[in-house]
Amino acid sequence: MRQADLDALLEAVQRGDLAPSAARERLVMEPYADLGFARLDTQRELRQGAPEAVLAEGKTPAEVRAIVAVALDRGAGSVLVTRTSAAVLAVLAEDLPDLQQHERARCAWVVRTPPERRGRVAMLSAGTSDGGVLHEARIRAELLGCEVSVHEDVGVAGLHRLAPALPAVGAADCVLVAAGMDGALASVVGGIASVPVIGVPTSAGYGSADGGNTALNAMLASCAAGLAVVGIDDGFGGGTVAALIARATGRATA
Amino acid sequence: MRQADLDALLEAVQRGDLAPSAARERLVMEPYADLGFARLDTQRELRQGAPEAVLAEGKTPAEVRAIVAVALDRGAGSVLVTRTSAAVLAVLAEDLPDLQQHERARCAWVVRTPPERRGRVAMLSAGTSDGGVLHEARIRAELLGCEVSVHEDVGVAGLHRLAPALPAVGAADCVLVAAGMDGALASVVGGIASVPVIGVPTSAGYGSADGGNTALNAMLASCAAGLAVVGIDDGFGGGTVAALIARATGRATA
Amino acid sequence: MRQADLDALLEAVQRGDLAPSAARERLVMEPYADLGFARLDTQRELRQGAPEAVLAEGKTPAEVRAIVAVALDRGAGSVLVTRTSAAVLAVLAEDLPDLQQHERARCAWVVRTPPERRGRVAMLSAGTSDGGVLHEARIRAELLGCEVSVHEDVGVAGLHRLAPALPAVGAADCVLVAAGMDGALASVVGGIASVPVIGVPTSAGYGSADGGNTALNAMLASCAAGLAVVGIDDGFGGGTVAALIARATGRATA
Amino acid sequence: MRQADLDALLEAVQRGDLAPSAARERLVMEPYADLGFARLDTQRELRQGAPEAVLAEGKTPAEVRAIVAVALDRGAGSVLVTRTSAAVLAVLAEDLPDLQQHERARCAWVVRTPPERRGRVAMLSAGTSDGGVLHEARIRAELLGCEVSVHEDVGVAGLHRLAPALPAVGAADCVLVAAGMDGALASVVGGIASVPVIGVPTSAGYGSADGGNTALNAMLASCAAGLAVVGIDDGFGGGTVAALIARATGRATA
Amino acid sequence: MRQADLDALLEAVQRGDLAPSAARERLVMEPYADLGFARLDTQRELRQGAPEAVLAEGKTPAEVRAIVAVALDRGAGSVLVTRTSAAVLAVLAEDLPDLQQHERARCAWVVRTPPERRGRVAMLSAGTSDGGVLHEARIRAELLGCEVSVHEDVGVAGLHRLAPALPAVGAADCVLVAAGMDGALASVVGGIASVPVIGVPTSAGYGSADGGNTALNAMLASCAAGLAVVGIDDGFGGGTVAALIARATGRATA
Amino acid sequence: MRQADLDALLEAVQRGDLAPSAARERLVMEPYADLGFARLDTQRELRQGAPEAVLAEGKTPAEVRAIVAVALDRGAGSVLVTRTSAAVLAVLAEDLPDLQQHERARCAWVVRTPPERRGRVAMLSAGTSDGGVLHEARIRAELLGCEVSVHEDVGVAGLHRLAPALPAVGAADCVLVAAGMDGALASVVGGIASVPVIGVPTSAGYGSADGGNTALNAMLASCAAGLAVVGIDDGFGGGTVAALIARATGRATA
Amino acid sequence: MRQADLDALLEAVQRGDLAPSAARERLVMEPYADLGFARLDTQRELRQGAPEAVLAEGKTPAEVRAIVAVALDRGAGSVLVTRTSAAVLAVLAEDLPDLQQHERARCAWVVRTPPERRGRVAMLSAGTSDGGVLHEARIRAELLGCEVSVHEDVGVAGLHRLAPALPAVGAADCVLVAAGMDGALASVVGGIASVPVIGVPTSAGYGSADGGNTALNAMLASCAAGLAVVGIDDGFGGGTVAALIARATGRATA
Amino acid sequence: MRQADLDALLEAVQRGDLAPSAARERLVMEPYADLGFARLDTQRELRQGAPEAVLAEGKTPAEVRAIVAVALDRGAGSVLVTRTSAAVLAVLAEDLPDLQQHERARCAWVVRTPPERRGRVAMLSAGTSDGGVLHEARIRAELLGCEVSVHEDVGVAGLHRLAPALPAVGAADCVLVAAGMDGALASVVGGIASVPVIGVPTSAGYGSADGGNTALNAMLASCAAGLAVVGIDDGFGGGTVAALIARATGRATA
Repeated sequence: MRQADLDALLEAVQRGDLAPSAARERLVMEPYADLGFARLDTQRELRQGAPEAVLAEGKTPAEVRAIVAVALDRGAGSVLVTRTSAAVLAVLAEDLPDLQQHERARCAWVVRTPPERRGRVAMLSAGTSDGGVLHEARIRAELLGCEVSVHEDVGVAGLHRLAPALPAVGAADCVLVAAGMDGALASVVGGIASVPVIGVPTSAGYGSADGGNTALNAMLASCAAGLAVVGIDDGFGGGTVAALIARATGRATA
Repeated sequence: MRQADLDALLEAVQRGDLAPSAARERLVMEPYADLGFARLDTQRELRQGAPEAVLAEGKTPAEVRAIVAVALDRGAGSVLVTRTSAAVLAVLAEDLPDLQQHERARCAWVVRTPPERRGRVAMLSAGTSDGGVLHEARIRAELLGCEVSVHEDVGVAGLHRLAPALPAVGAADCVLVAAGMDGALASVVGGIASVPVIGVPTSAGYGSADGGNTALNAMLASCAAGLAVVGIDDGFGGGTVAALIARATGRATA
Repeated sequence: MRQADLDALLEAVQRGDLAPSAARERLVMEPYADLGFARLDTQRELRQGAPEAVLAEGKTPAEVRAIVAVALDRGAGSVLVTRTSAAVLAVLAEDLPDLQQHERARCAWVVRTPPERRGRVAMLSAGTSDGGVLHEARIRAELLGCEVSVHEDVGVAGLHRLAPALPAVGAADCVLVAAGMDGALASVVGGIASVPVIGVPTSAGYGSADGGNTALNAMLASCAAGLAVVGIDDGFGGGTVAALIARATGRATA
Repeated sequence: MRQADLDALLEAVQRGDLAPSAARERLVMEPYADLGFARLDTQRELRQGAPEAVLAEGKTPAEVRAIVAVALDRGAGSVLVTRTSAAVLAVLAEDLPDLQQHERARCAWVVRTPPERRGRVAMLSAGTSDGGVLHEARIRAELLGCEVSVHEDVGVAGLHRLAPALPAVGAADCVLVAAGMDGALASVVGGIASVPVIGVPTSAGYGSADGGNTALNAMLASCAAGLAVVGIDDGFGGGTVAALIARATGRATA
Repeated sequence: MRQADLDALLEAVQRGDLAPSAARERLVMEPYADLGFARLDTQRELRQGAPEAVLAEGKTPAEVRAIVAVALDRGAGSVLVTRTSAAVLAVLAEDLPDLQQHERARCAWVVRTPPERRGRVAMLSAGTSDGGVLHEARIRAELLGCEVSVHEDVGVAGLHRLAPALPAVGAADCVLVAAGMDGALASVVGGIASVPVIGVPTSAGYGSADGGNTALNAMLASCAAGLAVVGIDDGFGGGTVAALIARATGRATA
Repeated sequence: MRQADLDALLEAVQRGDLAPSAARERLVMEPYADLGFARLDTQRELRQGAPEAVLAEGKTPAEVRAIVAVALDRGAGSVLVTRTSAAVLAVLAEDLPDLQQHERARCAWVVRTPPERRGRVAMLSAGTSDGGVLHEARIRAELLGCEVSVHEDVGVAGLHRLAPALPAVGAADCVLVAAGMDGALASVVGGIASVPVIGVPTSAGYGSADGGNTALNAMLASCAAGLAVVGIDDGFGGGTVAALIARATGRATA
Repeated sequence: MRQADLDALLEAVQRGDLAPSAARERLVMEPYADLGFARLDTQRELRQGAPEAVLAEGKTPAEVRAIVAVALDRGAGSVLVTRTSAAVLAVLAEDLPDLQQHERARCAWVVRTPPERRGRVAMLSAGTSDGGVLHEARIRAELLGCEVSVHEDVGVAGLHRLAPALPAVGAADCVLVAAGMDGALASVVGGIASVPVIGVPTSAGYGSADGGNTALNAMLASCAAGLAVVGIDDGFGGGTVAALIARATGRATA
Repeated sequence: MRQADLDALLEAVQRGDLAPSAARERLVMEPYADLGFARLDTQRELRQGAPEAVLAEGKTPAEVRAIVAVALDRGAGSVLVTRTSAAVLAVLAEDLPDLQQHERARCAWVVRTPPERRGRVAMLSAGTSDGGVLHEARIRAELLGCEVSVHEDVGVAGLHRLAPALPAVGAADCVLVAAGMDGALASVVGGIASVPVIGVPTSAGYGSADGGNTALNAMLASCAAGLAVVGIDDGFGGGTVAALIARATGRATA
């Protein structure tokens, strides 16, 4: 479905030539774009409230480029590419003058239709090395319309550093904590916040940090009962869940 | 703080003899009951919106009895005891004529002040063996005021069984999926629901199910981006997060 | 045994100078070619219905070249080299003008005698990143004479994408599913198909995907009872089993 | 759907009052029996060629009894209960005078309509301790109509013991190997058989046998390319896959 | 060496008939008592500053009884038996009217010569279920002469409960933290204390707590740089290290 | 082959009616006894120099009894049953007045023809809890004709206890070390002995001892280059390897 | 807080215009420097007796440079950067003419105010490959004021090499052992020393050494009761704990 | 001790000026060469019958060069360097015109005094990729004086390839099997050989081969009772044990 087709469809609805329910059905009937090596789920946003993103890892730059082109062609409001490489960034930049990117987060994105702004998320990291994952989560949540406040390097080895972040924690509709190593920040915040806390274990650290498994297991075994967890280094998934919660809960923001 | 004390305190507020802020401070100042072997966090509900529960496992029946007694004495609206044994149930039943219990969920509880009813959670299990965990989550969420619909044994080996649960999934403010073995139901539901999905991996199954780790890892590695996970067999934690989300999001229910 | 020897042998059979059983015995008597660093099992096809392939990983390009040369010299109908590197491809291309290759599958092969065509296999992948493993399986099965239909990127995060593949699943003599991460597609297909399903876990994904172990364990723990599994990333093994099943079961195809 | 309903339905078809396709649709439309705590997939056999069985582990005896009763009531040709306990056997024996059972395999079953007999499976075990799993597989495959030959305790520590089983391996449409510890028998048989080999790792052994994981991993890592594997101790799953292959491939047997 | 022998030896030193160095050599020359099934290291205290204890697990009650008898016979100032069973306690109580015991800690001990009192240790537990391990550590440290203050159930889910323990942490020569599940209390205390912190991971909890491995790894991966760790549930080892540090560092106490 | 048959066979050889080579061939031709549930490898001693033993675990008492009876009936010089239970011991004792047993080693055995005595093995354990495994190894090696010296509880926590064992280590043809926990004794002895050292990791200990895996891995990772290892708790295997080495190397002993 | 501010503050104290307690409070009130991507805990030394160090891994060279600059600007007595890369070293060397470094230890540091010298630590390594970790520990402990004696390559495969290190072990206030592979040196030293022993497992070795986990687990499972452990390759943490113990215990050194 | 010193010492013995026992004592008294970063165990051969080798991995080329120089200077009969890199080979080749090397085995060595030739070892590998480990073992055993026969690529996927190696297995004093993946060859050979079999698991293979752990565990869990195992990829260790056994057992060879 090209943009023109979509416009025609919507105009027909406007003119009263097409019932809204019939239009919705047509949209839902063509639910993906088949590229051969990939099937882009073009109506995930309609179905789930958040558009599919493109995981660049494990795909060639040409494949990423093609998927992004199709998504935009089909009228996506924004497209987010995660875990990018230099090669992927290069081909995307050729096509897209409005491409934005964040190096540490390994993300690139374009926004064609800004999202409705609703919900507040407070995002905290235990250490500087968790920054890439934290910012991936932030970018995702912002693309979904949330207002995000970021508080980096507030881990429990110097607990007093957490204090300035507490007002933001108190004002948020959802809190996200990215932490590697012992992951203890998630437990501590989970014992303070009155809203759901999403833990994102990171692979920061070496040796006994075990590639993020130690932080993951610590978060899962935590007594803090309002804490739920996503996969290791999965800033994208964490940002999505946090945004879904905050958008449903929160007030519209400026 | 005994109930009479609490009444006196609140009456002083009502009479205007005590500012609300001063009263709140006093309540927060005495934040736990020290039993020697345990410190009951009596104001967790004030701070986090959900009262502390009593994990019976690893405690003697006498310890559980004492903690429950103190909690009720301090005016708790309800007390939930999880992972009970026959011995624990016996001593609790002696003290509490209004004790309720659920055998498969290994839970016992009393309700002295019914919670405000708000928010809807749909809870699904993949198989009959996941029932204990599912009902622990249900009981917790109901005690937190949510309306819960339960759909058992709808795992992906017979995917058509899931169909009758879909309307409830569509109407819910949050969805919870309890599944052991391959945990695939969480991925499938996570690809359908437009609200956050909380996965609770269970230790059902044998051999390669690996005590719940297979389901846990599968849920964490899932592509379904609105899915967050709690610890293995942690129905209590899952029910808490789901209820926090649903209460914040949802409308009041009858 | 050189090709001329083989021809002489077979002509003797044709002339009636040698009983077929005697000829077969001679062939079976010389069951491998000793290259010093390797012993090529030249009669695996006679014994097992599928020729040995050459795993390039862990061998020098010169060793791979020598093994391929001997296999062709001994009259192999086709030779498949798996997990190739650029260096291996370079030396093979020097010797073999009819070399075919597939980059993502890391395979190279020559066909000197096309196989009898028999049996249908439907092959599905959960995501684009599983493509390398999927195509390794496809190439193997095609070299064993099967007709293969390929359906990529139909994972459960957008389950509707699976629908167009269902007719092929219904028509197949065997189904193969390549999936990493949560491996849930294998469970879902295993709950639908009426023929055996071969699961091939892949190492696609990061963090909690754990290099393919999560998908592997999920497939093994699945309730779908017609599902059997091969090793992580073992497209070759999966393609072989699927082809053995489909050839035994299936009708000859064009 | 009660048996009388089924009879009425089929009589309507016979009379020509109902088209077969319409009847089939009705059957498929009511695809499970809802018992509250379980949803029996009553048409799995129609859909997948093999009926659902009842895993007794994790269910109360009363639940197992109810599920079996419903399955028979709905006209199941046979019902198999796996991983039984003494308590489960006791309640089943009360209801079912024709109940059969196998102690080591922990199985119980009734046959109301014998299956069509088709296909041959050779089943081998490495040691006596693998016998429970082997016989679970045998019972399942026989209930699916296969002719099974059993060869116990033929592990590689005394490889000559395998010799008498080779003719049966050669005559089979599919081979199943149950082995714990090093699982090496599956590799050896996988290097000999010309039909697919299904490996069933067992938890026999102690220490480094690691509850079956060593055998599982060894089978998965095997070079024998016609070998596929099911979960640890999953005789039921192994028997199902083996029977599906053998039935599709094989000739009808007496 | 019987007590009388020891007295005679020391009296000879006192009289000047034996040089102290010669006496010390004799003591060191007979360094263990051979019981056949065990060799009691009777001079570990001389060599390492802390006597050997008797791990009852893995020994028969008769063996434990014999070892304790020999230790006392050789003049041990105290004997500590850890991980006792009811059977072990029964036989010890027969012999030793002055036997003391602690049920939750699974310890029994006799003191014949009270140790010199020196050094202060603050011991904290995250939850009530960690109490057994905590008290094993306490008993060991007290038998080594330390003054121990105990603070139970001060885990991070309700961090304010930790506050009353902070003065004791500030006054201690060494701090010990026993915690299961996420082990986060050790990280938090390790970020506050100015003396070494010994973490003792416990096996309290279920599921993702993984028998103490999660707490262990979290403590090892912690950023808190003054934190060292002993084995899971090893209250004895933790108490020993803490006491060695506190005794060397601390002042004599009343 | 019954004993009478064997006698007849050997008498024929003696009389010159049968060539020794022909007799040997006949013996080798009937290489196992088929009991249905088990195939006793009756000529493992002829082939490998050590008779098969009976692992009782995983077999019913009746099965063990039958296997032992057949082995003796076929003329075994001795039969060893390992990992016995009380039930197994009871049925064996009924049949065999000359049954010997060792409780801690969980072994039972009969000797009908004493072995030729050859070779010396020194066996050491790190702690009393390793005694069961050590004595299983000792019994096996003695039944294979070795002279064994035993040195228990000489672990590295009190290294001086090792000293009295060093002469035996120096005089042995092979050394065996049974150790759990850190397994360090094997490394230390492996750095001292001039003959091969066989390490047997044991499951003694708790927590971080990880059921013997820690000791196993430590032995495998040891720098001591003359050290080889058998499976966890596998006293039988360790005793066999040690005896094979000592018998080949050693002098005949009294 | 800039250096001038600090000077002004201290001068106010000197003049009597500000009470020392008030000054101390102000210092403690501003407890970190916020760099956006990092919050440097500038008063960790005040609070814990050891300054925060900079873990270069996971940070960009520019970030490391900025953190070091701020730390020195705030008056740090010394700054230690661990796990440096060539790029980090290059930017640091530009700014800091007095930068010192150790290649194998991957450390760089500057000292502006030498620490008070107090306490003795003996540090031993099992093999040459453990040297990097050992020297990281040494540098840290020296920067904290300890006198360190180093004894490399004294592992148990040649135990006599340990002998020359024993006098230093006997004279130390704390002993640190860095060992990979089997980690047995820590157990042996732990059985000899009368002061606390800190084990630092290293990732030296391959295969069964398992990246340091084997050494870690062996140290944790050791019977040597005065032994505590830090994370794999964590020379920094080990050096910190050892120095805290030695400084508290020890005498001032030249 | 320089070579001249050694000569002088031995000449004094020859002249009768020094008793052999006194000379031996002097040699044992100076048991290592201290290079600061390493302590070369110069008398390991005297003590253990096999000289220390130099593991190049984890050492700088300069360190390896220095150790080799010292070893030769001290009169070593041969020096073996394992796990070499190109850089190590380059510096060694500069110093040593008689340096030999084997690329796949990553070994380099010089022989100054050929060993006494005694004992026969048969060495088998399962696949070509195991060749590096196999040849490391061969080189080590040859340097210790054994006659080694090599049989590569005889794994169980084509068991008939093993047949030609059986005579060598039958003639050997010890057998060594290098195998990755399923490691099944060790079990099969262990069930055939009458002498001890040393298994060397290798990291060949991918996915479920798990870096050699699968082969390791399979060998440890094998029923073949004459089989002992060394660490993953530890050809050096395997070659040493095999040679110690073969030399003690075997006859002198040409």
